[in-house]
Amino acid sequence: MKVDLNCDMGESFGLYQIGNDEEMMKYITSANIACGFHGGDPHVMRQTVQLAKEYDVALGAHPGFPDLIGFGRRHINCTADEVKDYVVYQMGALKGFAQYVGLELQHCKPHGALYMMAMNDETLARAILEGIASFSDTIIVFALNNSAVAHVGEKMGLPIAKEVYADREHTKDGSIILTRTGPTIQSYEAMADRVVKMVKEKKVITPDGEEATVEVNTVCIHGDTKGAPELIRQIRERLEEANINVESVKRILTG
Amino acid sequence: MKVDLNCDMGESFGLYQIGNDEEMMKYITSANIACGFHGGDPHVMRQTVQLAKEYDVALGAHPGFPDLIGFGRRHINCTADEVKDYVVYQMGALKGFAQYVGLELQHCKPHGALYMMAMNDETLARAILEGIASFSDTIIVFALNNSAVAHVGEKMGLPIAKEVYADREHTKDGSIILTRTGPTIQSYEAMADRVVKMVKEKKVITPDGEEATVEVNTVCIHGDTKGAPELIRQIRERLEEANINVESVKRILTG
Amino acid sequence: MKVDLNCDMGESFGLYQIGNDEEMMKYITSANIACGFHGGDPHVMRQTVQLAKEYDVALGAHPGFPDLIGFGRRHINCTADEVKDYVVYQMGALKGFAQYVGLELQHCKPHGALYMMAMNDETLARAILEGIASFSDTIIVFALNNSAVAHVGEKMGLPIAKEVYADREHTKDGSIILTRTGPTIQSYEAMADRVVKMVKEKKVITPDGEEATVEVNTVCIHGDTKGAPELIRQIRERLEEANINVESVKRILTG
Amino acid sequence: MKVDLNCDMGESFGLYQIGNDEEMMKYITSANIACGFHGGDPHVMRQTVQLAKEYDVALGAHPGFPDLIGFGRRHINCTADEVKDYVVYQMGALKGFAQYVGLELQHCKPHGALYMMAMNDETLARAILEGIASFSDTIIVFALNNSAVAHVGEKMGLPIAKEVYADREHTKDGSIILTRTGPTIQSYEAMADRVVKMVKEKKVITPDGEEATVEVNTVCIHGDTKGAPELIRQIRERLEEANINVESVKRILTG
Repeated sequence: MKVDLNCDMGESFGLYQIGNDEEMMKYITSANIACGFHGGDPHVMRQTVQLAKEYDVALGAHPGFPDLIGFGRRHINCTADEVKDYVVYQMGALKGFAQYVGLELQHCKPHGALYMMAMNDETLARAILEGIASFSDTIIVFALNNSAVAHVGEKMGLPIAKEVYADREHTKDGSIILTRTGPTIQSYEAMADRVVKMVKEKKVITPDGEEATVEVNTVCIHGDTKGAPELIRQIRERLEEANINVESVKRILTG
Repeated sequence: MKVDLNCDMGESFGLYQIGNDEEMMKYITSANIACGFHGGDPHVMRQTVQLAKEYDVALGAHPGFPDLIGFGRRHINCTADEVKDYVVYQMGALKGFAQYVGLELQHCKPHGALYMMAMNDETLARAILEGIASFSDTIIVFALNNSAVAHVGEKMGLPIAKEVYADREHTKDGSIILTRTGPTIQSYEAMADRVVKMVKEKKVITPDGEEATVEVNTVCIHGDTKGAPELIRQIRERLEEANINVESVKRILTG
Repeated sequence: MKVDLNCDMGESFGLYQIGNDEEMMKYITSANIACGFHGGDPHVMRQTVQLAKEYDVALGAHPGFPDLIGFGRRHINCTADEVKDYVVYQMGALKGFAQYVGLELQHCKPHGALYMMAMNDETLARAILEGIASFSDTIIVFALNNSAVAHVGEKMGLPIAKEVYADREHTKDGSIILTRTGPTIQSYEAMADRVVKMVKEKKVITPDGEEATVEVNTVCIHGDTKGAPELIRQIRERLEEANINVESVKRILTG
Repeated sequence: MKVDLNCDMGESFGLYQIGNDEEMMKYITSANIACGFHGGDPHVMRQTVQLAKEYDVALGAHPGFPDLIGFGRRHINCTADEVKDYVVYQMGALKGFAQYVGLELQHCKPHGALYMMAMNDETLARAILEGIASFSDTIIVFALNNSAVAHVGEKMGLPIAKEVYADREHTKDGSIILTRTGPTIQSYEAMADRVVKMVKEKKVITPDGEEATVEVNTVCIHGDTKGAPELIRQIRERLEEANINVESVKRILTG
């Protein structure tokens, strides 16, 4: 039994610092690296790629809307073509830095509003997926259970990693309830236990007390969740106690 | 005898149109494509790459300072590391679009203030060259005769294409006098004749009436020079009359 | 009988030129000046304000979303507070330039997606109106007939100028059908006649052939509509033949 | 004997937090508020203006170069006209928010590279001063002793406040040595003592051990200097012990 742990990284910009990148790198296996649109800048990108290399963490692109002031969290009604081009641009830029340190991109995970808008919109999902697939049909796409990205991506024959969240609630169909207010579960132990249950039993309890079925290849922990480094440390510990290997998603899907 | 003709392309942004891209594509062999910092945006980049493919024009990156409001023409005292990262970011983004249409990047030519600042600054020149070389040591770098970029690039073993300008004056050492006011030579015939002379005899007359020696692998024509499409048409005609083949710089340097 | 003619102005950015500002200034009485978010920059703003002064055209702010790449035409789901702050920021910046040339702001007209989103959204309309009113309760707000901006603005006691479009179709309730494709009426004469009819009879025919009732204080002509300067010339001519005075909206509302 | 204490404020951007605004507000009498170019955004500006009002701190504009990625610290070779327009734009925007809360702008202090470039450049200094003066000839300009801004401003008849720094070294002529590395004096007591000496005796010791003469109307403390809130607390304490009143610069200059 195996699972990947991922976290958004490299979202600092110029002098502005955000997140706990170095602390989180110690525990994750996949880094979603911001590409300069919603966060990140060329200098931050290079440093983040180098940090990931140092900690042997697999690299992924984390493209967002061109909206730094809104941190990519505001819906923008772009055309599908605009979105595809934003994805190609940002992934290309990150691939430049990956290559700079001698690495490849493992995965792509859209950020914020782009991720949420594509969840239920097949046209947008396809645009994003075509952008990703133009790089290689081996780049793994992170997608929520039962999302448009998962459905369309599978139809296109792309490798999809099913994603759940350690610090967010899930819906009946295994998708998530994305709020800006952070997790409602306050105890790290409870969150860690829930992660183990999702991976081992493929089950998660919704806020309404219902049981949802989830497939889990990768678990996201937000770097800006209060106490994130402590939370992820406990998640790893609990996973290891349950004999679940924490490995990068590439090894899991191709293993 | 062979020469390449290049032009800056894809500098439009959103609704804003600039240049005569489609007209110029008919006559050039290498396109320097803006990468979204001084001009260009993801959508414009994809369209420009597709246009270049349609006209069988080789692709090059045209990275600039992050200064859209100043069109990348204002000197910014960035560190060498910042500049290197700007080059990697922009080349990576363009390579994403090249790959999208199944092509490779042939060359890189820094834009505006970045090009001018690197002309005499070995540290900056090296930063740019290291950024370019991180992609491949076969990407050709456009550089002025006797410039720091040419000197350092040759020491690094990178392929350098010596560049002259159809619509700008040259100095005694074969470099150029870059003004925003455009060419002082008013007749297309005179400009075309001067290009032939530079390629054939490796000579150009400076504004002071002196003769400078130049090596010429590629000739730049600005797309926003008044009458640029007519000028380049005449240049090609005159080159053909002089039995000089117009070919992409890759074929010239590796031919 | 009186009417004001308005046009969006100062939407150029850096080296990028857009619109026919100087030509349009000759015929309009109110200029909606871009404030640097969807178009315009500080230098363009100063030049546009000076041009308006030269032609004795009243100044208005034309604030938009911070989305230069989308020219402010893409819906962004900002909060009401964010929108209010965007309006205050942009109006303040323009007022700086107005003051620089010794003039006051006459009016404010939100741009593009902001204008369209506020049409039916009372919360957004109120946020915009509170931003405007913080400058002065005498600044005139341009609003479509039966729009949320008109309703809420009137309740707040702010001076509202009812706006119709020379080059767009109208709905049954006097609002407009905003498309990016421009006018469907192809003849300038027909458009000019329609303007006269709207002002004189308060009537306009919808695309479905129905008759809508409109109040008209100001008529918008887009500067980038094909043949805009010729169109507006004919509109003025026809208005004068019909004994309708063309005056700035301030004189009309306070006259 | 009186002195003003000032600090840069409102340099956060979107989700990115920087500085210790609320802590510093308790001790300063003048706030230099970023205007959205090098830092700050419309929402941050409104919040900062409201915070200043709450703590009865006078408002000043802190305009910088349009270079968020470089935090306005990189020299950009703009024209004097461009700089003037940047100042008018940013001051206008801030004045909008000042007016929103019923306050006036007291002063203007250029930021970072703009401040440093204008120190010795009379053309640039004049451009900045003309931008400021277009708002009112009573807006106080913060300037280093013996700087071009001070000289030209005094010739233009504008009110100039002579500024020294609590956490930077000074030169023989009373100007400062601006480094990004922060203060070399490590003890808060020593820094506080030095401030008292500058205000009381108009003297400061340079790094070379020479004594420089300074005029002091206002003292700057950087909000991002390590321990800034503690430093400024001690400075105020020491000033009060020395019977020096801490008051806003407007009250000091206008008596």
